[in-house]
Amino acid sequence: MGGIKLDRRDGVLTITLSRPERLNAVDGALTEEMLDVLNELARDPDTQVVVLTGEGRGFCSGMDIQGGDPGQESSEGRVQRLYRGIGRGGEVTARLREIPQPVIAALHGPVAGMGVSWALACDMRVADPTTRFVVPFVNLGLSAGDCGLSWLLPRLVGPARAAEIFYRAQRLDVSRAEALGLVTEVSAEGADLEAAHALADELLAKSPYGLRRTKELLNTALDAPGLRAQLQAETAVQTLAFFTEDLPEGMTATMEKRPPKFKNR
Amino acid sequence: MGGIKLDRRDGVLTITLSRPERLNAVDGALTEEMLDVLNELARDPDTQVVVLTGEGRGFCSGMDIQGGDPGQESSEGRVQRLYRGIGRGGEVTARLREIPQPVIAALHGPVAGMGVSWALACDMRVADPTTRFVVPFVNLGLSAGDCGLSWLLPRLVGPARAAEIFYRAQRLDVSRAEALGLVTEVSAEGADLEAAHALADELLAKSPYGLRRTKELLNTALDAPGLRAQLQAETAVQTLAFFTEDLPEGMTATMEKRPPKFKNR
Amino acid sequence: MGGIKLDRRDGVLTITLSRPERLNAVDGALTEEMLDVLNELARDPDTQVVVLTGEGRGFCSGMDIQGGDPGQESSEGRVQRLYRGIGRGGEVTARLREIPQPVIAALHGPVAGMGVSWALACDMRVADPTTRFVVPFVNLGLSAGDCGLSWLLPRLVGPARAAEIFYRAQRLDVSRAEALGLVTEVSAEGADLEAAHALADELLAKSPYGLRRTKELLNTALDAPGLRAQLQAETAVQTLAFFTEDLPEGMTATMEKRPPKFKNR
Repeated sequence: MGGIKLDRRDGVLTITLSRPERLNAVDGALTEEMLDVLNELARDPDTQVVVLTGEGRGFCSGMDIQGGDPGQESSEGRVQRLYRGIGRGGEVTARLREIPQPVIAALHGPVAGMGVSWALACDMRVADPTTRFVVPFVNLGLSAGDCGLSWLLPRLVGPARAAEIFYRAQRLDVSRAEALGLVTEVSAEGADLEAAHALADELLAKSPYGLRRTKELLNTALDAPGLRAQLQAETAVQTLAFFTEDLPEGMTATMEKRPPKFKNR
Repeated sequence: MGGIKLDRRDGVLTITLSRPERLNAVDGALTEEMLDVLNELARDPDTQVVVLTGEGRGFCSGMDIQGGDPGQESSEGRVQRLYRGIGRGGEVTARLREIPQPVIAALHGPVAGMGVSWALACDMRVADPTTRFVVPFVNLGLSAGDCGLSWLLPRLVGPARAAEIFYRAQRLDVSRAEALGLVTEVSAEGADLEAAHALADELLAKSPYGLRRTKELLNTALDAPGLRAQLQAETAVQTLAFFTEDLPEGMTATMEKRPPKFKNR
Repeated sequence: MGGIKLDRRDGVLTITLSRPERLNAVDGALTEEMLDVLNELARDPDTQVVVLTGEGRGFCSGMDIQGGDPGQESSEGRVQRLYRGIGRGGEVTARLREIPQPVIAALHGPVAGMGVSWALACDMRVADPTTRFVVPFVNLGLSAGDCGLSWLLPRLVGPARAAEIFYRAQRLDVSRAEALGLVTEVSAEGADLEAAHALADELLAKSPYGLRRTKELLNTALDAPGLRAQLQAETAVQTLAFFTEDLPEGMTATMEKRPPKFKNR
């Protein structure tokens, strides 16, 4: 182990990429640790919010290609090793979206390559002023279609700005990222994790059923074949809310102008 | 009746949500009245533009849950009643988009819950400075996937901003809504309906065939499986325009630099 | 010939719409010339970047309807002629996106009707201050669903702004177009082509494999049935990059902090 660190506090799980000597470059072991954690989150009723950050002077420098191809340790052929190594990085992107808990990225310093995909797969991003998004793919001989990036960025900033950023291998500082809507909140320098935890605490006061189903429906909506398909999913999910104990508590608390006490029941 | 009021003038139909004593909360009767009106509009060749507004100090306070579950008056079981009550509210959202006439929302005061879905289902929104969009779902124990909202908002402001607004149950004042592109025009206080009618009058001077087919194709485009499918639909619709009487009138008027006189023929 | 002019320099092909006496109005002959050029580009390994511009005082005034319906020269019936004439204009839109090379539009003066579709089908747009986008369809009796426009514009500016622009037949000057994200760069007056060539030169220094696959994956992403389908495509494309000669060159050049010399091998 050692690729990531976990910290649980109340309903918040903080995942820290922890290879600071490599600027948190992602190798196969770290990827599999991430997938194990995300796999647990999919069936974890107690964690309500996830925070994802990086130890040391940056969030993540991307896939670790020092020492050769990703996945090189195995007995597979090179095609198979590479395909698996790259594919598993994309699997993290997919699962960050598929777990029911909202995920907040706490960003500082370089957010590069695969690190951009993971950061953009989160629901919200808090960034300190040292943050910079770096997508050097076409400078390296690679495609910017990497671990979901070609799907995520055009949905967040539109296809024309995504094309410009990718083709020119642009570096986005925090003010451009904020103007493009990539960053929910800019914190003071070095305070991105603190600000992400404050945002997580805000979400802890919300209905767990509401948050989880909202995240799932937002993801469903992006791929829905049309409004009517989404309406069906929404109607069933909303009807179900009326059979939870938290709904009357939320209604009563709102009428009494007091904070609700949700129990995830 | 009494849930909504209708006013016809030239080619403009103004629909007013009319339960001002309940801030235009939507009950089952109002929903069914809306659906009847929208059903008529789908086959109404004379109405060219629709304006949707609310009587009194706000546009709409959302679904009326006072006195119990939506749809409680019926003999169905609770699951069936709730599913139907919620589903019919979403049906209004769908039909606001499916009718061929452009719909302009005239907004002021609170636009809350289901009222946000209906407002965002309109093609354009005029808002006065008192307007605020309120999505309290996760404070209540509900999902923000409500009457099409989880499909509409990410398409209008992008998925990251939609997540932030939903998870934090944010209240959007008119300046934030305008910055996010949710509001076409900000009117003087109390003048939202007047400004919406001015905009409707502007559209009355346009080609009815052009407006109707443009609205339909914009909706088709959002769900089209790709550009080539959309091109097929567009090509047929545009070819048909050449067989209308209004096209030569529009061409001639433009060449003569005079306003065209379209007859919807 | 004569409808378009071609200029090849290094890896850049510049296509110039060349009917300046008609403000580069597009007739059937010009459309077929464009399709021939785009057809060649789909199998051209040497051209890395395409620039599309217009000769004279504007980019393009739209479909040339002087002298009658598009496609009038043929023996077909009117329905068939019109359908073919309009459909072939849309085919240009589709192929501008389907060719693997990034396309940069160099814009000045009027960009009208079908010209807007072609300009928005390009990956990036450089515009000088005289540029104005004009979509007069509903003033003429036509739908704004023209040659892909109803699919392109809502993806670039969102569905609410697209509706407003189409229904009101708005004219967008360069500052509004830039604010909406339609324009990548505003050049000095008369310098749009020069600025587009500078941008093309910047892209020539990038990996041809990376640029081409990024463009294709950006297009795939817009229509992908979901993130996981896109991840599959991305993983295969990225794995393949490791079997090119340009990848080690890109990696080495980056480590040695020198510009890479890509050979499209």
